[in-house]
Amino acid sequence: MTRYERLADDIEAAVRRGVFGAGERILSVRRASEQHGVSIKTVLHAYALLESRGVIESRPQSGYFVRESWRAHGTAARDGAAGKPKARRAGAPKAPAAAPVDVSRLVLSTLRSIGAQDAVPLGSPYPDPALYPWRRINQYANAIARRHASWNLIDDLPPGNPELIRQIARRYAENGTPVDPEEIVVTVGATEAINLSLQAVAKPGDTVAVESPTYYAMLHAIERLGMRAIEVSTHPETGLDLDALERVLRRQKVAACMVMPNFQNPLGFRMPDERKARLVALAEAHDMPLIENDVYQELYFGPTRPTPLKHFDASGIVLHCASFSKSLSASYRIGWAMPGRYRAQVEKLKFLNTLTTPSVPQVALADYLRHDGYDRHLRRLRRFYRQQARLMRAMVQRFFPAGTRTSDPQGGYVLWVELPASVDSMRLYQAALARGITIGPGYMFSMRDDFHHYIRLNYSYPWTAQTEAALKTLGELIAQMT
Amino acid sequence: MTRYERLADDIEAAVRRGVFGAGERILSVRRASEQHGVSIKTVLHAYALLESRGVIESRPQSGYFVRESWRAHGTAARDGAAGKPKARRAGAPKAPAAAPVDVSRLVLSTLRSIGAQDAVPLGSPYPDPALYPWRRINQYANAIARRHASWNLIDDLPPGNPELIRQIARRYAENGTPVDPEEIVVTVGATEAINLSLQAVAKPGDTVAVESPTYYAMLHAIERLGMRAIEVSTHPETGLDLDALERVLRRQKVAACMVMPNFQNPLGFRMPDERKARLVALAEAHDMPLIENDVYQELYFGPTRPTPLKHFDASGIVLHCASFSKSLSASYRIGWAMPGRYRAQVEKLKFLNTLTTPSVPQVALADYLRHDGYDRHLRRLRRFYRQQARLMRAMVQRFFPAGTRTSDPQGGYVLWVELPASVDSMRLYQAALARGITIGPGYMFSMRDDFHHYIRLNYSYPWTAQTEAALKTLGELIAQMT
Repeated sequence: MTRYERLADDIEAAVRRGVFGAGERILSVRRASEQHGVSIKTVLHAYALLESRGVIESRPQSGYFVRESWRAHGTAARDGAAGKPKARRAGAPKAPAAAPVDVSRLVLSTLRSIGAQDAVPLGSPYPDPALYPWRRINQYANAIARRHASWNLIDDLPPGNPELIRQIARRYAENGTPVDPEEIVVTVGATEAINLSLQAVAKPGDTVAVESPTYYAMLHAIERLGMRAIEVSTHPETGLDLDALERVLRRQKVAACMVMPNFQNPLGFRMPDERKARLVALAEAHDMPLIENDVYQELYFGPTRPTPLKHFDASGIVLHCASFSKSLSASYRIGWAMPGRYRAQVEKLKFLNTLTTPSVPQVALADYLRHDGYDRHLRRLRRFYRQQARLMRAMVQRFFPAGTRTSDPQGGYVLWVELPASVDSMRLYQAALARGITIGPGYMFSMRDDFHHYIRLNYSYPWTAQTEAALKTLGELIAQMT
Repeated sequence: MTRYERLADDIEAAVRRGVFGAGERILSVRRASEQHGVSIKTVLHAYALLESRGVIESRPQSGYFVRESWRAHGTAARDGAAGKPKARRAGAPKAPAAAPVDVSRLVLSTLRSIGAQDAVPLGSPYPDPALYPWRRINQYANAIARRHASWNLIDDLPPGNPELIRQIARRYAENGTPVDPEEIVVTVGATEAINLSLQAVAKPGDTVAVESPTYYAMLHAIERLGMRAIEVSTHPETGLDLDALERVLRRQKVAACMVMPNFQNPLGFRMPDERKARLVALAEAHDMPLIENDVYQELYFGPTRPTPLKHFDASGIVLHCASFSKSLSASYRIGWAMPGRYRAQVEKLKFLNTLTTPSVPQVALADYLRHDGYDRHLRRLRRFYRQQARLMRAMVQRFFPAGTRTSDPQGGYVLWVELPASVDSMRLYQAALARGITIGPGYMFSMRDDFHHYIRLNYSYPWTAQTEAALKTLGELIAQMT
């Protein structure tokens, strides 16, 4: 038995034991070489052997992955041992005929392609970090670190650092939505705020209404907590169809409704104020908590700032979630919840989930907000994204085949693109990835089959020749598929 | 109607709406004065009126709280609207006759007393932050911030920053437990690692075995995920009673077992190696994942370093959880999981729970570990805690009444104290708090009634006249209660 055969056997055994799950990336050739103390050539031989055995597959520019088909036999023991039933997408009346897409894995693998292979980040959900005042915020972090000999995390326990909470409340007040600082709970990004809010108001088996298409993190939160999602059709310009929601509410008990009324990801609409007011009234009438994801609130293109649902909430039925990740710093991971009447529950869940949010990032952002040019930075950012939105729309119209339609974002940094109906966005995703380009396939945003020919494009990155070439390539790939 | 009556009415209305929950602290007098734009005197009058109405109660040195009895009528709507059944402690055969203790609220309120009122921190679960190289780590954070013009969080997505992961793996390898770096998932403290691990292996309704007494975060994780805890008796010197565990396993299906084999909080024992090996073998035989909380691994007093359960794990059934919170920095909130065969599941849950762990803290700790005197710092810390343990034991023996017995910690920074059986630790907690002293009442560590006369004392803080006076006062209070 040669060295590479032995290595291949070892790796296959690891896959059988479930050390690497189906669809998961295995060690890169270089790292495997280091770890097993063998040459690069030996690893390449071993991987080729494993490919021929059907254990792994190579994906261009991404690395080697355990084949999806392993789910069916090889690693069944792993999921069984976990005692956890395979998470099924609940309430999916028209599931795509293809194998179900594991959206969170798809998102992670898209992001990894961007990170590790420098793939064109059209598929990224995050803004270009170069646009944000990272250095400036870090200077505050450093100043805080210098001022104190040590730091007691007790001071920043849930609800969070008092000065940051004050700054967040001040900003809402200045923007026309006075809030009680005591309502705010600081979280690790809006992601944690959304998860805790959902857990505070609904329990496993409950039905939760979402927009369709919706931001996939909403679907993930619902799935993870063992709840059922019901998708409510959503207009690309005015948002959630309130008549449709009302029909659902007459038919069945809905434990909560998760919405993104301002610059929804992926559609980019701004829900008109009168519809927001009606949505809150509807929620009150049906005693249905509203979980509002308002992470794009600062990134508006129009002359006026959008109001949150929270603005129309007199009874505390809105759980408002937001963060600084799109407006100041994503890597600081600072978000917050204003959970209305569910505040005590969310605060307690925060304590149980991650104990507390890291201290220095909280205080550094508070100092930045108090002293620095947040509004100036935001004005620049809004102007830039507005220009980029126009540019991306124009370029998509230029390079994509006839029959392509795009959203008209009123804020944020993503464009929603409808391709000719014959195009399958997962096939396009794979083909684009092979050419070093990432996109957000429509499958991510719904459990239904309605958006298989849609994609989401990120336009936060400054326009370059590479972006243009990528859009041109995408256009050609799409043309081939129609 | 006077100004203070109006204010009292407003606050009562807020309590009725559920803005403040039963048992929750309301605004401090100073903050209420600022927020409502009234004088301190007006607030004091309003609060006195609300006390006489039975809406709130004042607790010495802690502030004003909504009365627990409000749960019964005033705020019932809130819990009802949340659609969430009151969390009941599952499987508590001998529940205390008194009202059930909301342990997470008790912990939070203890911590707040320490933070806001400078109460003597004998009840703290955290080490004295002044003992940790906070400044040094911050210097690395600052250097990182200077070196980069911006930061892309994509680089630190789950499993986490690659350099930090390498450093964590290196340390295990140097300490005699070689681990696969690919197994490590970075989390927001060990708290998140434990939550994700439990969710990866068990589902709502499942039974999970824990030590008795156990670290309360284990109970919280179980309760929050809708699982049932079964407590297995635990020896103060050798840990979990494996025969008792085996009897449980013969009787019923146990989805997971959560243990803290090294310097368990609160008992402080170090489980002997042969028992660790037997526990892992038992877990394998019964296909029962072991969630190992090893946050005190670095804080040993003896000549040799303890081995983790992970060391004895050939099949990947151990989900090892740890952090730097007790050894380097609590406020940086960096922990990790090594979830064995459940790695893919835990990594995905991490992504869904908080997306990613903040970047700079990850890289700063990696740099510190690579360059700085971690071992020197730890040697100093271990020596100090060992001395403090001796001192605290001696002082408890000196000041507490006859019949008091203490644990003999082999590591960590907490002492477990058995008081005469007639002492109720919750009554002692209240009486001590009224004198500006916090303790950890035994109720926190079990759902059973077995530990009502036990308390946990934190000895990480340098000994002062105040500590001595606090212990003396505690001794007197205990004597009065016997």
